[in-house]
Amino acid sequence: MDPEIEKLRKPGHKILDVIKNRWSPRAMTGEEISDEELMSLFEAARWAPSSFNNQPWRFIYAKRNTPEWNDIFSLMVEFNQGWTKNAAVLLVVISKNTFDHNNKPAHTHSYDTGAAWMSLALEGTSRGLVVHGMEGFNYEKAKTVLGIPDGFTVEAMAAIGKKAPKESLPPALQPKEVPSPRRPIEEILMKGKFRS
Amino acid sequence: MDPEIEKLRKPGHKILDVIKNRWSPRAMTGEEISDEELMSLFEAARWAPSSFNNQPWRFIYAKRNTPEWNDIFSLMVEFNQGWTKNAAVLLVVISKNTFDHNNKPAHTHSYDTGAAWMSLALEGTSRGLVVHGMEGFNYEKAKTVLGIPDGFTVEAMAAIGKKAPKESLPPALQPKEVPSPRRPIEEILMKGKFRS
Repeated sequence: MDPEIEKLRKPGHKILDVIKNRWSPRAMTGEEISDEELMSLFEAARWAPSSFNNQPWRFIYAKRNTPEWNDIFSLMVEFNQGWTKNAAVLLVVISKNTFDHNNKPAHTHSYDTGAAWMSLALEGTSRGLVVHGMEGFNYEKAKTVLGIPDGFTVEAMAAIGKKAPKESLPPALQPKEVPSPRRPIEEILMKGKFRS
Repeated sequence: MDPEIEKLRKPGHKILDVIKNRWSPRAMTGEEISDEELMSLFEAARWAPSSFNNQPWRFIYAKRNTPEWNDIFSLMVEFNQGWTKNAAVLLVVISKNTFDHNNKPAHTHSYDTGAAWMSLALEGTSRGLVVHGMEGFNYEKAKTVLGIPDGFTVEAMAAIGKKAPKESLPPALQPKEVPSPRRPIEEILMKGKFRS
């Protein structure tokens, strides 16, 4: 387990190590990830739950040093380009808005896709990889550049790569390279009724 | 590991056992779950990733045999009431639509909340509990009955309970009590560009 995690994260109740250990580092080595390892991350996403088992999640990805990389890299804001240039893989997560079986709107398409994303992130964490989600990119440009048709929602992006020491980041990013805290559990939990 | 899982689920790539083992049974004993165990499920949700660490997820829950139970139970369609009557806990998952730090719309509030939901489901799975998500309920009634204000989205419901043998279900539900399959990974994965 990451010693930073042990120091900074104090869950109030016992949880799976892989959940406690997951955070969103930015420092990556730029090394490649094997297809075998990468496919295990997508495989993990594949088994998430979804309404009517509709599996609305889709992943558009590019590996570094491939012709596809630049298109996806170009979508991000400058801040994210600054550190994701050392990722091994970039991905754009999208979801299908409707059910396959009746073409009606699927209320939970984004929610279900978030579940698949978490599964992918946890699988990556268990392998010691960096898996870092992002919404700092141009959603409209993503639709155009990647040819995403109407009927699909662009949800988020993510960078995947091999972890590097914090010191490899630009100096301004180094103080941010720590596992983040959370609100007290009381703020997210309500018994019986909404309470603000 | 569930022998049904070993028989029915053949991931094409190696993944965490807890991800492979997660499915959505309906048969529950009606027994209580301790607060200690239940809080570990919410604690797991708490550590999910979210845009700007906004943690938009909120959980409204009720334990069986409490005054709060009936309100939440009444939201579900008859089909879901038929089996969730043996749950230990019902929950309604909602999300805050805006960022705390600037009150602007948070694009990923549903997606991030889906990630927290998956974390909760996996923690429950690791403890041998049933954790079954649902969208078969009245979303509008949920807002009214539970007092959910504008600015929050009702995402989904879930039932949590202790697993029971399939034979305890009404006969019509017994054939459905099996881990579901998934689409081939090729259908969810696209290199560089959208492909239908």
